[in-house]
Amino acid sequence: MTQLRKVGIVGIGITKFGKHLEKGSRELFYEAAFKAIEDASIDPKGIEALYFGNAVGSVLEHQAHMGPLMAEGLGLRYIPAIRFENACASSGVALRDAYFAIASGFYDTVLVGGAEKMVTEKGTLEVTDALALGADNLFEYNAGLTFPGLYATIARAHMKKYGTTEEQLAMVSVKNHKNAMDNPNAHFHKEITIEDALNARPIAEPLKLFDCCPISDGAAAVIMVSEKYFNKFETPIEIIGSGQGSDSISLQGRKDITRIVSAEIAARTAYKMAGVTPEDIDLAEVHDCFTIAEIIATEGLGFFKIGEGGKGVEEGETQKDGRIPINVSGGLKAKGHPVGATGVAQVVELVEQLRGEAGKRQVSGAEIGLAHNVGGSGATATVHILRR
Amino acid sequence: MTQLRKVGIVGIGITKFGKHLEKGSRELFYEAAFKAIEDASIDPKGIEALYFGNAVGSVLEHQAHMGPLMAEGLGLRYIPAIRFENACASSGVALRDAYFAIASGFYDTVLVGGAEKMVTEKGTLEVTDALALGADNLFEYNAGLTFPGLYATIARAHMKKYGTTEEQLAMVSVKNHKNAMDNPNAHFHKEITIEDALNARPIAEPLKLFDCCPISDGAAAVIMVSEKYFNKFETPIEIIGSGQGSDSISLQGRKDITRIVSAEIAARTAYKMAGVTPEDIDLAEVHDCFTIAEIIATEGLGFFKIGEGGKGVEEGETQKDGRIPINVSGGLKAKGHPVGATGVAQVVELVEQLRGEAGKRQVSGAEIGLAHNVGGSGATATVHILRR
Repeated sequence: MTQLRKVGIVGIGITKFGKHLEKGSRELFYEAAFKAIEDASIDPKGIEALYFGNAVGSVLEHQAHMGPLMAEGLGLRYIPAIRFENACASSGVALRDAYFAIASGFYDTVLVGGAEKMVTEKGTLEVTDALALGADNLFEYNAGLTFPGLYATIARAHMKKYGTTEEQLAMVSVKNHKNAMDNPNAHFHKEITIEDALNARPIAEPLKLFDCCPISDGAAAVIMVSEKYFNKFETPIEIIGSGQGSDSISLQGRKDITRIVSAEIAARTAYKMAGVTPEDIDLAEVHDCFTIAEIIATEGLGFFKIGEGGKGVEEGETQKDGRIPINVSGGLKAKGHPVGATGVAQVVELVEQLRGEAGKRQVSGAEIGLAHNVGGSGATATVHILRR
Repeated sequence: MTQLRKVGIVGIGITKFGKHLEKGSRELFYEAAFKAIEDASIDPKGIEALYFGNAVGSVLEHQAHMGPLMAEGLGLRYIPAIRFENACASSGVALRDAYFAIASGFYDTVLVGGAEKMVTEKGTLEVTDALALGADNLFEYNAGLTFPGLYATIARAHMKKYGTTEEQLAMVSVKNHKNAMDNPNAHFHKEITIEDALNARPIAEPLKLFDCCPISDGAAAVIMVSEKYFNKFETPIEIIGSGQGSDSISLQGRKDITRIVSAEIAARTAYKMAGVTPEDIDLAEVHDCFTIAEIIATEGLGFFKIGEGGKGVEEGETQKDGRIPINVSGGLKAKGHPVGATGVAQVVELVEQLRGEAGKRQVSGAEIGLAHNVGGSGATATVHILRR
């Protein structure tokens, strides 16, 4: 490999996640991107490219080709602008490709982000149908399976194989709702109890309402620079590892549905590049689209042995003051999950934490953070490791 | 910039373009990709990533997240696999990003391609509606504008400003239909006359049926390698220049709708990187989704002065044996335009030509070729320059 250049994140921006009835993805992204530009205190004219993630705008907004659309609205109409779509990992993938382009020397300053407009007048059924674009149309959607059903199947398998309990799933939700209380941009500011979670209405058993992330609008953006500018910023946060993996898009094609192999591959690649191990990670933002997904994520990332993620949450190890704080932002569960924005939103949280600017959410002394973004039921995953 | 590594195309594959009533985009892409792998004579296990373009599968096939879907079907289920969507420039953008990742040293062997399933039982209206995702929903689609109308507006402006004639538009179509006669993979094998073109039914005046490319199914793929493997192949074709530009997604935002500024930017970048000028190009595959688009392309690429592209086709300069052969493959007009596949399909044609293996289509002594891929009405454009 040729010598790669240092890449730093020097500006972050995020909208409030939740219902934005009068905004589309363009208004949402403009807000996040302008915040990132302001946060970096750079002249936007220096931005050389836009890497943008969006998953379901083609269906919910009848709008694709969002790369140049978003660049134009920011006053950057002539720069290369790309839309990435890997389901809910769209902006994680965008971030990784931007990292390639900067590390290699093609660009010195890049805007990376994602946005999703999901709350529509048509409601949950339409959104569930649109999200199912990220599953296998032939073998899953046409058989009636959408994501709650897919993750319910995964949860049942994990419970059977490892003894993971519905209480442990509920504990993930309780923790993330609690964490979100300190996040002003979170979709929910409402603490829940184990009993609330266990007694909520079933969505796809064993998953109940509080096991599922909400439908949220939102956007997130970061400014990334090469080593040419890295040291000109006060607290640049370096990307020290980047990994991506894939797996069968349908569950039926997987060897073991209790694991997300794409994420394990992504993690191995990222840890190796960064020269760190799971023990070195001070906090992680993981893709908890459903509570079971967080448990599997913490296993696949090496924070717990395979099968012991349920025990980990039960023993409090993933709490903000635990051994490995997971989703101190509130996670997808309580911060919200505007799908195309999520991968970059996770990184925004890490940057705030590594700068020591996360306020009440601050994980004391955090130096290395990890972001774990998953598309579909695990066909795509990216892992990024950041260091202050 | 760090030292970039040489990148070569060493395998190509393409399906017949046209109606494939019993195939979806996955079957189409598998065919093209396996052909590319066979053409390169490589062990597919060596492929490290898939860069894949698709534009409207979310709507026409209810299938997104096609990166890992396509990788899986090729026996490559664990590799990073990305879907790019920049309307009709989706696979041109994919190719450029793959070039970055190889030139920089992240990968040594990558599969790049695109596919589109467009011919459905529902017919032209549904496809026109899906393609309109690549225009501005807010300011164009909701005002009733789809692509034939947008390009008709461009054509009227070009005719008024430069005296371009309907006959000159027809000549583009006649030439490309003639060229396609020698392309076994072309959608159409039917020569037409100027009169046929001028007397065809209007689609959006001044554009008539033969001014518009058809709705086609198809896929294309290439194998790209780094300099590590470059010289192990018999006739590697080097990518010596790569450019991308953007512009306002809506026509109303443009300064001058008779030019596609995104393509002019992309061309400048690619020429500079390659160290060549328009005079050095032996043949070009350009994005003739409508006949007027070919005329504007040949101006923006510097083959003719601005406003003189119409005269250029009239004087035979763009014929296969002319000064600058344009679309010897038949172009989008007659080869067909499965939109997500088009950018890579253009490159497949160039590789055949630069290898000297294009049979009856061969441009004698071709050493340098150029591919010009446009998304929407010009919000995205990529230009790639290849050398044997």
